[in-house]
Amino acid sequence: MIIDNLIEKIKQTNNPTVVGLDPRLDYIPNCIKQNAYEKLGKTPSGAMEAFWQFNKAIIDATYDLIPAVKPQIAMYEQFGVEGIACYIKTIAYAKEMGLLVIGDIKRSDIASTAEAYANGHIGKVKIEENQFEIYREDFVTLNPYLGWDSIEPYLQHCKDFQKGLFILVKTSNPNSGQLQDLKVNGVKLYERVGELTEDWGTPFQGKYGYSSIGAVVGATHAKQAEDLRKKLPHTFFLVPGYGAQGATAEDLSVCFDKEGLGAIVNSSRGIIAAYKNKKYADFSDFAQASRQAVIDMRDDLNCVR
Amino acid sequence: MIIDNLIEKIKQTNNPTVVGLDPRLDYIPNCIKQNAYEKLGKTPSGAMEAFWQFNKAIIDATYDLIPAVKPQIAMYEQFGVEGIACYIKTIAYAKEMGLLVIGDIKRSDIASTAEAYANGHIGKVKIEENQFEIYREDFVTLNPYLGWDSIEPYLQHCKDFQKGLFILVKTSNPNSGQLQDLKVNGVKLYERVGELTEDWGTPFQGKYGYSSIGAVVGATHAKQAEDLRKKLPHTFFLVPGYGAQGATAEDLSVCFDKEGLGAIVNSSRGIIAAYKNKKYADFSDFAQASRQAVIDMRDDLNCVR
Repeated sequence: MIIDNLIEKIKQTNNPTVVGLDPRLDYIPNCIKQNAYEKLGKTPSGAMEAFWQFNKAIIDATYDLIPAVKPQIAMYEQFGVEGIACYIKTIAYAKEMGLLVIGDIKRSDIASTAEAYANGHIGKVKIEENQFEIYREDFVTLNPYLGWDSIEPYLQHCKDFQKGLFILVKTSNPNSGQLQDLKVNGVKLYERVGELTEDWGTPFQGKYGYSSIGAVVGATHAKQAEDLRKKLPHTFFLVPGYGAQGATAEDLSVCFDKEGLGAIVNSSRGIIAAYKNKKYADFSDFAQASRQAVIDMRDDLNCVR
Repeated sequence: MIIDNLIEKIKQTNNPTVVGLDPRLDYIPNCIKQNAYEKLGKTPSGAMEAFWQFNKAIIDATYDLIPAVKPQIAMYEQFGVEGIACYIKTIAYAKEMGLLVIGDIKRSDIASTAEAYANGHIGKVKIEENQFEIYREDFVTLNPYLGWDSIEPYLQHCKDFQKGLFILVKTSNPNSGQLQDLKVNGVKLYERVGELTEDWGTPFQGKYGYSSIGAVVGATHAKQAEDLRKKLPHTFFLVPGYGAQGATAEDLSVCFDKEGLGAIVNSSRGIIAAYKNKKYADFSDFAQASRQAVIDMRDDLNCVR
């Protein structure tokens, strides 16, 4: 089970941090951008060359300290063909460096459409007698609003290709409650989605008691996260919201179990743009600032788990 | 307002049909595939050359009869870089032929991530002083599970670039009720999403009384569609489920208003793979079979609206 690999990487690095590789042009140091623009122009190709050099430097400076990275596909997809090429190249490099990759794609579709996403992202696409692995994420995030029909097509791929999912249960954004907190049959909608996720994961439980079908649970809603941790004992949490979005290690301590497992915490801006933070102003190399930010986050999380 | 353009195209063609450009290799005639494979191999490039030739022929044979096409991005995205190139090329060609384009992307994300999707799909991406239009859909579909935060970043783009949205309200799949039909504060979840969609659309109402913020309402759930039509008088419906998914024109008659407006009905397989249907066996040209299928669907819908 891929969830066992994730847990073992967390144990080995003693770090439940996942680095969100969500570059923006204004996070990228000027020297990288200038080089890229000189080579390829201020074009999608140039911008994606800058993203790639930036991502590579962050991975090189942090891969030995972290279990996984989480590229957010939107940041790449917006640039079209060149963006998708950069997303795929980043995933390939992260895997080459021994990292697990969580593709933050939040797709939501059904039937043959869901199967197309599943084939491309975590399976293989068939072209006559040939098969191709395209994106190669280890896990992807999915939106459950369409129900079982939008999850089921991915499960055979999880089995066949040793992959995993994180289902959006309770997201970290301020208005996540607008639908997710509505009461349905005595429980809140996100609690119902949590129960379904726990059920869907039953055939995918690994040796540490967690399943490869995890849940996205925002750290910005600490009380809800605490309840979910109790109610979903086999569901591993992917926790956004730490740092830039306002949640502290204290807030998200409730996401961990008694062994300090059960959750992996994302930070994007706080790590990849650390060099812009006064705290890391002494670093002349932006990637070394990111490395220190990973160490600081690891130590911060390890105080509470 | 872009919704006015859509309504005018529906009036002009006397046809509330949108053709779903969701190719699969097994829908594509062998002669097209063989040509593409000979040129580019049984590879993603070859497969996407086949998709492109297929889409182009379908558009050429139907553009004068229909208001819009709806490419489903999953069918392209699964093939990676070449797939995205084909999706973009298909959109550009459809627009060149005077069609409106609904990008079926069902994205769901928040804040800067949602803005990235909005920039790429219905706005412009900025690279220093340069701006690029990347995907160029006129409308995109969105998933509302993350609430207002996942819709709001698109609205400024709708205003600035004359674009529109279709929010997933009640989807056509068999298990759509698993979450969407749960009762919340006395109404079903999908009804609440419908109310929100109607509200979100208020600033985007055009001259026919409909707003550019529409709703996806599956024709496979006729009673629910009928109720929604009454409750959401300013919300235009994008209706999947006709034909291959089982809904008849009779079922979806409830989606139209008294003037026969208020909805556009999607058919994918039923049109693009019409030549595989016994009914169209006499056509030697697959694209002419699709043309006849469009005419038959138009006439079928016009009997009930």
